[in-house]
Amino acid sequence: MSRPGPIGSGRFAPRLPRSGRDRLGRRGTINGVTLQDSPFLRACQRLPVSHTPVWFMRQAGRSLPEYRRVRADVPMLEACARPDMIVEITMQPVRRYEVDAAIYFSDIVVPLKAIGVDLDIKSGVGPVVAEPIRDLDAIKRLRDLEPDDIPFVTEAVGELVGELADRPLIGFAGGPFTLASYLIEGGPSKNHEHTKAMMYGEPDVWAELMQRLSAITLEFLRVQVAAGASAVQLFDSWVGALSPEDYRAGVLPYTKWIFAKLGELNVPRIHFGVGTGELLGLLGEAGADVVGVDWRVPLDRAAQRVQAGTALQGNLDPATLFAPWEVVAERTRDVLSRARAAEGHIFNLGHGVLPTTDPDKLARLTDFVHQETAR
Amino acid sequence: MSRPGPIGSGRFAPRLPRSGRDRLGRRGTINGVTLQDSPFLRACQRLPVSHTPVWFMRQAGRSLPEYRRVRADVPMLEACARPDMIVEITMQPVRRYEVDAAIYFSDIVVPLKAIGVDLDIKSGVGPVVAEPIRDLDAIKRLRDLEPDDIPFVTEAVGELVGELADRPLIGFAGGPFTLASYLIEGGPSKNHEHTKAMMYGEPDVWAELMQRLSAITLEFLRVQVAAGASAVQLFDSWVGALSPEDYRAGVLPYTKWIFAKLGELNVPRIHFGVGTGELLGLLGEAGADVVGVDWRVPLDRAAQRVQAGTALQGNLDPATLFAPWEVVAERTRDVLSRARAAEGHIFNLGHGVLPTTDPDKLARLTDFVHQETAR
Repeated sequence: MSRPGPIGSGRFAPRLPRSGRDRLGRRGTINGVTLQDSPFLRACQRLPVSHTPVWFMRQAGRSLPEYRRVRADVPMLEACARPDMIVEITMQPVRRYEVDAAIYFSDIVVPLKAIGVDLDIKSGVGPVVAEPIRDLDAIKRLRDLEPDDIPFVTEAVGELVGELADRPLIGFAGGPFTLASYLIEGGPSKNHEHTKAMMYGEPDVWAELMQRLSAITLEFLRVQVAAGASAVQLFDSWVGALSPEDYRAGVLPYTKWIFAKLGELNVPRIHFGVGTGELLGLLGEAGADVVGVDWRVPLDRAAQRVQAGTALQGNLDPATLFAPWEVVAERTRDVLSRARAAEGHIFNLGHGVLPTTDPDKLARLTDFVHQETAR
Repeated sequence: MSRPGPIGSGRFAPRLPRSGRDRLGRRGTINGVTLQDSPFLRACQRLPVSHTPVWFMRQAGRSLPEYRRVRADVPMLEACARPDMIVEITMQPVRRYEVDAAIYFSDIVVPLKAIGVDLDIKSGVGPVVAEPIRDLDAIKRLRDLEPDDIPFVTEAVGELVGELADRPLIGFAGGPFTLASYLIEGGPSKNHEHTKAMMYGEPDVWAELMQRLSAITLEFLRVQVAAGASAVQLFDSWVGALSPEDYRAGVLPYTKWIFAKLGELNVPRIHFGVGTGELLGLLGEAGADVVGVDWRVPLDRAAQRVQAGTALQGNLDPATLFAPWEVVAERTRDVLSRARAAEGHIFNLGHGVLPTTDPDKLARLTDFVHQETAR
């Protein structure tokens, strides 16, 4: 079924034929443009693109009035478990912006909730775990995630893929270190001291926890891909709290395993964490096709830190959007110019959209990147 | 007055003679050991030391029961303005630990409070500014800091220098970016969006603010040195939120000015910010004699990023102290081993002591570093 020529020559191309539906029933051609032709999926594969693709971390979320409206009476974890909400929220930014990809709306802790961990997302705080998990017994009670635990994911992704047509859907999951920190600290943590104490002081206990969380993360992404997601992003949000040696010893083996298993699904894998300047090479080494870079590391510098065969994603400082448009334009040009040092580039912010960001500026920014990079 | 030989050969040595008192009335010799002989001041000057000097950021603070006791009924800003409290709190860790230096107890916002900015430190939140400063008019109302605004500093430092004898006192001030962020955001901020919007979008307004804050910072340190502090540390805590180019354009000129002026005082200058892996070279370029490194960047890697003639301070992960002692020892040995790549080394944590840290572990850690490095 694979085809020669520019389309189908990419690393991930064999899975989806130029037209018709693949074995998962996904459409390959919409209005004469195939999903695999999309600049986003091509850039992930470091193939030439008609323009630099754009999406924004947290493009679906509090910055949009329509998001605040639909979420007004619906708690976060309920929204993440209702296919109608997931579809609506995932689609909202796609209706506003000419972004080149949608990102599955969820929260990092959704798979934990799905296996029965007693947790809630408290407004203004974040996820709060009723009973922090700090010993082997508690860890061993974390059971595997089964597709039946998350029927809403399959349903929502299926619907989204139909609505998005030729626009790729990126699957979403939190990384195992970040999940471990929530479970061990019992909520958001600035210093991750209990997490690190376990990682540094009880390596066997830590390994057991990380193995379980990695399997859960993998399954959460696998279900999204099986339902039609065209790429995945693993957000290990807080992994930047670790030194390179600690990341190498305590996280890399698990992330590597997740990415290796994801490799069998034949979709591009993006890996991102904030404050990971020292870890960029290791994030790539873990097996990511695309490494996300926060705004602290210029992309030309980041390109030197990742190994050959890695595309980059990023990295306009989200705070830039609070400055006048001329500043946004100038800084965006700088990002695009430095990105030429990368083998492939997906334009994004260096972290999530800030809640008070003006959506009109994001719309303008999307168009600006497309215009500036049109070939 | 300066002397040849190993003592007196350092860059900062001419100021303080081997014995007697200098022009500020500071003692030069106590029990046959001069202040300038102290391992801390020698390490700052990259001179050979009898053991690697140790101190801990936030060694005075909530981790100590005696601190919690004296602070129980005294609000933070009152404690920072009372000489008896400053002396007591600064001395508390020195009584417990064999640390090689004391650090003047204060808070970053004390000089702002002293010039009349309406602010308070709220427990569990941090500094809160009644009216955030976001335009030129408000900035122009920030007046200069005069020594008469802070008589308690002069009094407390004078007393401390007497009590500390041959143990150096490090002067303390917050850096101008961090002060600007508190003033502009109105309190602690995760994303510094208003601060960055001003820095990126209104460079002239930003320059006016930074000039005023730099002058205030300089004066706050100058008063401490005039009263007898033997070194200074500029904590620009949040500067790690900036990309290298933004730091270079928006902060470096001001820090450079502060350090140049401090150079006239002839005391070692330490510069620290958390998450500054990408900025280490620039922090040194600003004119620091010692660059503090957080735990994310191994010291051997940090040594490659700073220019010749710079000592390093750091950098055990503060969370390590929550792991068993064997882990603390092993990781400390690793820090000491990597530090051999630096021209001078002052042992410290990579960030402040966490409030729930066991003080006995810090005592043991201090002794351990001394033993491991005794020459």
